[in-house]
Amino acid sequence: MATERPSRLRVFSLNCWGIRFFSQLCTQRYEMIGDLLGREQHDIALLQEVWSERDFLFLKKKLSSSHPYTHYFKSGVIGSGLAVFSRHRIQDALLYQYSLNGYPYMLRHGDWFGGKAVGLVIVDISGLKAHVYVTHLHAEYSRAQDEYLPHRVVQSWELLQFVRHTSRGADLVVLGGDLNMHPQDLGNRLFRSHTGLRDCYTETDTFDGCEDGHTLIADNHFTKKQDLIPFEKGIRIDYILMKGSQRVNMKCESLSTTKGPVADKPFPYSDHEALTAELALLRLEDSSQHGLSDTLAVSDQMDVVTEARAVVKEGLCQTEALRDKAMHLMFGALLLLLLPLAMAFLPCSCSFSTVGLLGAVCMGLLLSGAVLYLLFTTHIKVLKETEDQMMLTSNDLQTKLTGCRLSGSSSSDGYPELQPLSPFKWEE
Amino acid sequence: MATERPSRLRVFSLNCWGIRFFSQLCTQRYEMIGDLLGREQHDIALLQEVWSERDFLFLKKKLSSSHPYTHYFKSGVIGSGLAVFSRHRIQDALLYQYSLNGYPYMLRHGDWFGGKAVGLVIVDISGLKAHVYVTHLHAEYSRAQDEYLPHRVVQSWELLQFVRHTSRGADLVVLGGDLNMHPQDLGNRLFRSHTGLRDCYTETDTFDGCEDGHTLIADNHFTKKQDLIPFEKGIRIDYILMKGSQRVNMKCESLSTTKGPVADKPFPYSDHEALTAELALLRLEDSSQHGLSDTLAVSDQMDVVTEARAVVKEGLCQTEALRDKAMHLMFGALLLLLLPLAMAFLPCSCSFSTVGLLGAVCMGLLLSGAVLYLLFTTHIKVLKETEDQMMLTSNDLQTKLTGCRLSGSSSSDGYPELQPLSPFKWEE
Repeated sequence: MATERPSRLRVFSLNCWGIRFFSQLCTQRYEMIGDLLGREQHDIALLQEVWSERDFLFLKKKLSSSHPYTHYFKSGVIGSGLAVFSRHRIQDALLYQYSLNGYPYMLRHGDWFGGKAVGLVIVDISGLKAHVYVTHLHAEYSRAQDEYLPHRVVQSWELLQFVRHTSRGADLVVLGGDLNMHPQDLGNRLFRSHTGLRDCYTETDTFDGCEDGHTLIADNHFTKKQDLIPFEKGIRIDYILMKGSQRVNMKCESLSTTKGPVADKPFPYSDHEALTAELALLRLEDSSQHGLSDTLAVSDQMDVVTEARAVVKEGLCQTEALRDKAMHLMFGALLLLLLPLAMAFLPCSCSFSTVGLLGAVCMGLLLSGAVLYLLFTTHIKVLKETEDQMMLTSNDLQTKLTGCRLSGSSSSDGYPELQPLSPFKWEE
Repeated sequence: MATERPSRLRVFSLNCWGIRFFSQLCTQRYEMIGDLLGREQHDIALLQEVWSERDFLFLKKKLSSSHPYTHYFKSGVIGSGLAVFSRHRIQDALLYQYSLNGYPYMLRHGDWFGGKAVGLVIVDISGLKAHVYVTHLHAEYSRAQDEYLPHRVVQSWELLQFVRHTSRGADLVVLGGDLNMHPQDLGNRLFRSHTGLRDCYTETDTFDGCEDGHTLIADNHFTKKQDLIPFEKGIRIDYILMKGSQRVNMKCESLSTTKGPVADKPFPYSDHEALTAELALLRLEDSSQHGLSDTLAVSDQMDVVTEARAVVKEGLCQTEALRDKAMHLMFGALLLLLLPLAMAFLPCSCSFSTVGLLGAVCMGLLLSGAVLYLLFTTHIKVLKETEDQMMLTSNDLQTKLTGCRLSGSSSSDGYPELQPLSPFKWEE
């Protein structure tokens, strides 16, 4: 039952493509982004790929009167790239860095160095507690042969776990960011089905923007056309999602995207398009809109989590194979090490330096093998942990489906329980 | 107002000291721990330092009928060492790995390899939602010169942030583990004051155990006496903490510890003493026991967070100095690299191998410097992020104290805002 007329919350999200000395026209584009934010005065602006703290500080200074509340999330070697600008007071912030995020030796992809994460700020909007999330997931470099798919599915799982466990008690939930997933990609379906967050693009009353809501389009000056193949017109990988609560009903009244070129400017804001959502908030006395189980079919959740588990298992097999290769490298290097040792102790014409050089090369190989072995071992731990958590969720959903607490397998590690227990009793 | 008579929840916590091939009598002690848990049938057992998955699986099999619900948290290179055994259904699990956890090159300490973390399991206890946390913080190797203090304070901060953001909606909260902090240590005070969790040792009606609740005692066969100096009798670093909610009032009726030697056994369970708490749960219709601001003075929270910020700042300075040293190492190696280059191009009598060996040594130094530089850079990011979050909390507490939303500095990054904004208005 509504008690007041709705108010509006304007949310902005943009992947700024702010890699200093690599992204084109970075300084000029941050000027433009600052102008846009200062002029439009969105309630909350969620930015990704603000890789340089200097660029964040530039925006912070420029927006000090329009958006006096800010948080820049720091993690990884370079940073998380995530920044929030708010017209409303930020009460608290929390960061969760994804456990899996590519490989450090994939230097030309570079995601590993970014410390990809999800940031949460708790914003006080006239007494309402808004939990606002900003995130950026691992990029998809090849749709046909996506070696990072298990990483992105694990990130989606960690994102949904983080959101559902930290959003209890929120009056409203907003998430914005570059998910690097198409709308019907597994990680996206997994996230939406388990958090109950709704996609503003599919929910909006009115839409003004690129065809099909694309946020990476061929018509953008900075977009590499080969990155879009086979989606010539563009893809939708940036999102604003939302969810209300028992106290507040949320509705997306309008959603808009930038459309590549900017009027009176020689180039676009970024290689991604920006999103702006206008959300209507309706205070409620009571509502049925609460929790995911009310809004989403349990069997749908089961299906998508089963699909995700299969991907994680596949990733586990691949990573175990990589760990084996690292072990072979170590053994190979150890065997090779016998060569300079033999040369040192057997009478031959080799100089001390030759032996030393060979030894150094072998030690280098051995060390590389050891570091890779440790890296893949941590990845295996993360994949197993994710699979265990997914299994727990599956079991919980199964219990909900059957309505029987003691049915099905209950152990999180996949071992069947031997006998059901008598339930915990309250003394009468 | 109470509606029923209380029921009881028995919680167990033990640091198992389960380092295979290093910890003494590991196999025999796991046998004893399994026997104890099977016999005592605690509702929930929280174990730390179960480093080997094989040992976890041994316990899991042994306890399959008494504790059919389990979760083993996996992270880091070796694992988190955290395990939960429960008589009640585990519905969900979530892991948060601490961002700072020592240094990989401190091989003899080894904490870095463990992937220290806090694990959460959500347990269904007759319809009540219990959020049960298990954790293990970085060890204190020297009380006089504790180089890891900033790491432990950051871990305490991340622990309290994780607990307070994930425990909303819980009917009861229990945390058990080895905090590696004395009761009045900064991180401990910080955690308690900001979560409202209460220490079972100070709250219990009856206590049976070691003097002053010590969990590391001189009378334990496995304890190295020099580790206790200057606390000859022992120290208290293992805890069970608890908090109720609006639905459930919690009370610690009894707390006990093991006391070193075990009757009829030649040695203790571990080098730590085990804790057992018997908690009375009283279902309420309503209660004033809710949230931290009701139970704890805001000014106390302010004081402790200010103290913690000072430690984090100090840690930041130290880490920046370490990063500078790593940079010097890199520059030194680069300069040295000129030597083999000069030898290779100038006419001299040096063999190819001598040049190669020198080059390999220089490259090794350069690589070490680069890896250390990256490591300390990530540490600096974490320390800055923690300090920012602490500043946000300080500002929020300040706002509560003054009762004025617009007073004080509001920006999370320490920049003063220029002008207050008109508040968000609901349309009438």
